[in-house]
Amino acid sequence: MNRRGMLAAGGVAAAAAGLAAPALSQGRIEWRMVTLWPRNLPGPGVAAQKVADRIGAVTAGRITVRLFAAGEVVPAPGAFDAVAAGTADLYHGVPSFWIAKSPAIGFFGSFPFGMTVYERQAWMMHGGGQALYDEVYARFGVKPFNTGDSGPQWLGWFRREINSIEDFRGLRFRTAGLGGEMFRRAGASVVTLPAGQIFAALQSGTIDAAEFLGPFSDAPLGLHQVTKNYYWPGVQEPSSAEEIGINMARWNALPDDLKNAVRFACQSVAEEVTTEYDANHPRALAELVSRHGVIPREVPRDVLIALGNSAGEILAEFRGHQDPMVKRVADSYTEFRNRSQGYMMQSYGANFQARALPIRWG
Amino acid sequence: MNRRGMLAAGGVAAAAAGLAAPALSQGRIEWRMVTLWPRNLPGPGVAAQKVADRIGAVTAGRITVRLFAAGEVVPAPGAFDAVAAGTADLYHGVPSFWIAKSPAIGFFGSFPFGMTVYERQAWMMHGGGQALYDEVYARFGVKPFNTGDSGPQWLGWFRREINSIEDFRGLRFRTAGLGGEMFRRAGASVVTLPAGQIFAALQSGTIDAAEFLGPFSDAPLGLHQVTKNYYWPGVQEPSSAEEIGINMARWNALPDDLKNAVRFACQSVAEEVTTEYDANHPRALAELVSRHGVIPREVPRDVLIALGNSAGEILAEFRGHQDPMVKRVADSYTEFRNRSQGYMMQSYGANFQARALPIRWG
Repeated sequence: MNRRGMLAAGGVAAAAAGLAAPALSQGRIEWRMVTLWPRNLPGPGVAAQKVADRIGAVTAGRITVRLFAAGEVVPAPGAFDAVAAGTADLYHGVPSFWIAKSPAIGFFGSFPFGMTVYERQAWMMHGGGQALYDEVYARFGVKPFNTGDSGPQWLGWFRREINSIEDFRGLRFRTAGLGGEMFRRAGASVVTLPAGQIFAALQSGTIDAAEFLGPFSDAPLGLHQVTKNYYWPGVQEPSSAEEIGINMARWNALPDDLKNAVRFACQSVAEEVTTEYDANHPRALAELVSRHGVIPREVPRDVLIALGNSAGEILAEFRGHQDPMVKRVADSYTEFRNRSQGYMMQSYGANFQARALPIRWG
Repeated sequence: MNRRGMLAAGGVAAAAAGLAAPALSQGRIEWRMVTLWPRNLPGPGVAAQKVADRIGAVTAGRITVRLFAAGEVVPAPGAFDAVAAGTADLYHGVPSFWIAKSPAIGFFGSFPFGMTVYERQAWMMHGGGQALYDEVYARFGVKPFNTGDSGPQWLGWFRREINSIEDFRGLRFRTAGLGGEMFRRAGASVVTLPAGQIFAALQSGTIDAAEFLGPFSDAPLGLHQVTKNYYWPGVQEPSSAEEIGINMARWNALPDDLKNAVRFACQSVAEEVTTEYDANHPRALAELVSRHGVIPREVPRDVLIALGNSAGEILAEFRGHQDPMVKRVADSYTEFRNRSQGYMMQSYGANFQARALPIRWG
């Protein structure tokens, strides 16, 4: 949801011209995909095009997907509704962008102090998550598929160092979504700004801090020219899913083999997209540190505890939500995350720790 | 490579009957896949069948894959050579099983104190790893694809607690591969045993310790009936890749669209397979602890340092190897792993740590 700001630039309201019923020629299906991104925006814009192309490749051209960048046909914020209404056939976006429709949607993208990318994928593929994902989106006439993830976010760029949770009180912080709600409860004054305006706001002192995504996507914004304080971990968003949503009537009209092909296309892209962020973030971080003197700083333990308790408050509200669907999704997510926790520490986490010991390796 | 033992049961030498040139009927290709596993062995056996079926689905039946379990047509250890020689069209196995052919092969599977699963996938997809993978296997006439990973292993089951590296001296330890070499250098007496013989050997005291894989695959062996000491992290194998290898002439004969389809089929399976282990290991671990009183124990810091230095010795030998290919692969792997290290600690690892703090969440 931190990418919400990117949309403003491309979010010119435009008529839905050219987006009629899907074209059919010689039994071939032509789908129009609307996106939240400028065309080929590094990261999600490139990923959107990859998904479009992959659907064409895996279906051997029986479905071709034409991509429309944000604002080309519908303004970005309208992408979900355009697909729900059948004005467009599918969109490429992020679940966190639609959480106003239902808090349940957030869990398929990210939740503060929740699962990291691959844990959430395990939940969705093998823990009942996909069935819930389908059920929630079906309410709106949309069939969703995950298509990757931009990885754990960073906490953000802070003009002043963070020493205690008190430092969040009144902090004018550019952030968004459920993570933003967590920071608001911790006392921050949440500011929503498009990506292109963050640098100027941070430089002029209009805001005190800003979080956007992670090193690969943050670097081009130039925030390191204003402050060197770059905080981790980004507990507000331990993952940040990308997805497509397909108009339900169009989806239901597909024969089973094409349904499978679309699913396999999305699956074949997902790990490719996520690992590209995994590969690019470390490269970008190394450059921010070595060339620009950025100082990666760890959020103090007491601050993490306070933020975690705020996140827990939000979760408790969702688990007691009046909409039983929200409650079911929150419960399923929570149970899977809590069972995964110890194992992840003892496997992936402990390997990272072991590698950090003073050993002669490499 | 810890799964090597599983092969003995199915590894009956058998004639290569029925494995002739690939059948062609009405322009459709029929491939015979040999595997290292008993049919539908939980974990890799199930994954092998999934890969076979997925290639059929993604190619819309233009390629169908018939699976032969270990020993049905060729004995498991001969799977690679059978494919290289064209006796079979492809195999499903693990890279670590073929490292006697070239130490370079190990890096595409696992290396002690090396990358975890998704880091290695990032290296292979976006860090030049796949090109090296192709180059190494092309020497043997095989085209390889990753098809998932069984995740970080556990260090193993130990009759006596580990307090110092001295406890490895003379320890009769059932282990294998590069991890086994690391333990050997630390003083262990490495014992190779098929999976089905581990329980009896540990119970009778013929061996003092055994490592096989992780909770999901270890639980059925019943080692928890002999000892409750289950050590983590499994630094000997921070990942354990599964793969297919296709006969190069058969691969080269495919038109480009089918080549892509096979690649997409493998990619679409990979994350699905890996996250299934990620989902199953925590479930199995929880049951081992709650029902069987297993005690997950952390390997002491000084022991990890000593093991890490042994792993580093092996790596240094590969980086100075007389075969320039081995050196190139080792260098590329090392560079990517070392750049990834800090970022992984600050993103994935730090999120696991933050979740472990005393917070009210869930």
